[in-house]
Amino acid sequence: MSMEQKTDKVYQQVIDYISCLIKEGILKKGDKIPTERDLSVRFGVSRNSIREALKILEVIGLVVRRQGDGTFIKEQFDDCLTEPLSMVFMLEEIGIDDIFQFRNMIEVQTVVLAASRITDAEIQQLEMTYQNMIRETDDVNKAKYDIEFHHIIAKASRNVLILNSYNVMSSLMGAFINNIRIKVLEGGGTEEVVSAIHKKILEALKSRDPQLAEVAIKEHMEVINSMFKQV
Amino acid sequence: MSMEQKTDKVYQQVIDYISCLIKEGILKKGDKIPTERDLSVRFGVSRNSIREALKILEVIGLVVRRQGDGTFIKEQFDDCLTEPLSMVFMLEEIGIDDIFQFRNMIEVQTVVLAASRITDAEIQQLEMTYQNMIRETDDVNKAKYDIEFHHIIAKASRNVLILNSYNVMSSLMGAFINNIRIKVLEGGGTEEVVSAIHKKILEALKSRDPQLAEVAIKEHMEVINSMFKQV
Repeated sequence: MSMEQKTDKVYQQVIDYISCLIKEGILKKGDKIPTERDLSVRFGVSRNSIREALKILEVIGLVVRRQGDGTFIKEQFDDCLTEPLSMVFMLEEIGIDDIFQFRNMIEVQTVVLAASRITDAEIQQLEMTYQNMIRETDDVNKAKYDIEFHHIIAKASRNVLILNSYNVMSSLMGAFINNIRIKVLEGGGTEEVVSAIHKKILEALKSRDPQLAEVAIKEHMEVINSMFKQV
Repeated sequence: MSMEQKTDKVYQQVIDYISCLIKEGILKKGDKIPTERDLSVRFGVSRNSIREALKILEVIGLVVRRQGDGTFIKEQFDDCLTEPLSMVFMLEEIGIDDIFQFRNMIEVQTVVLAASRITDAEIQQLEMTYQNMIRETDDVNKAKYDIEFHHIIAKASRNVLILNSYNVMSSLMGAFINNIRIKVLEGGGTEEVVSAIHKKILEALKSRDPQLAEVAIKEHMEVINSMFKQV
């Protein structure tokens, strides 16, 4: 966070205090945070200043304010910060290659981790999504199943840090590379090739073999990268 | 960002507007954003409401406000969002294993990319940092050179998305695993082993060989992971 304008930064002090309570483990997911009144007494400032700090935490996606009930630490952080992150990445003028490398890094790791962590229920869900994907005739719906397929795997990695990166990547893909799937197919990819690589990933995960899974996902990444570049 | 409390969210409208200007490429790094007066006329709200929105953007780390001069898009986003992200990760109760897997994913990718992108000047800088690291006798300073060594490589990856993830990871390592280097050495690691794996990475980068570099960094990760687990 910015260190400029030290003075008049009541909101920074309040945020630091909440941050501290979180880091100490005193505040957990879903917990109610101290009231505006408590905070305004503690910091000796107006309730307006406190409200400002809480609004900032809300925009960041850390807390949710419920009218008449108070302010609570959120339960879910899946999409937290993806909006500001995508603004930053726009400003950095990232290119398609950057996104592909980023995607490559994350997808490979999620699949490898998922291979030893995926539950039977998730395998079933993945199998169903795969079947839906190959049966579907509408391109837009097909793409949705494709995205769902990868998202199930990302969740099965059971690593919040990596899942969070996955979600950032996923929203970047959505913002920067519209309809990648359609472009890949227009670029000479056939439905059969795309289906076959997903099948391979599915089978590797079913046999819970991280090495097989790594080979399969790397093949997937290579196929879409090369097809996309032909466009 | 939260979708609750739709009403009274002037700040969200202002943020969306700035976000839109960024995504359209109208606002770039270092640019001055519209004045409080302009924004208050555009949105038909008080300048206080506008100021609130700008404060939020400042805390997120997107803009910097200069007294009497206006508000500017930042030039550098290296550390942007690491503070809120580390709060989120605390709340998700991440473990050491999560951080190691996350680190593993990022370090391998940065080294592989750096192998074909590192400049001669960066190779020199890396060599110097390596020499300083092995010559240094003070543990704290030695650790600083070690961190610098990896950071030079991360920058040489020339991928903002991956560098940004690296910085988040790095600040997590700092916050959660204090003095990892000292723990690795206490856990039975010898200075010689640690030096040798860094030397191997350096040589692989010098020969600009991504495959050799991948082998070297994976060995590095395995060595510290296994040593750390013995502690």
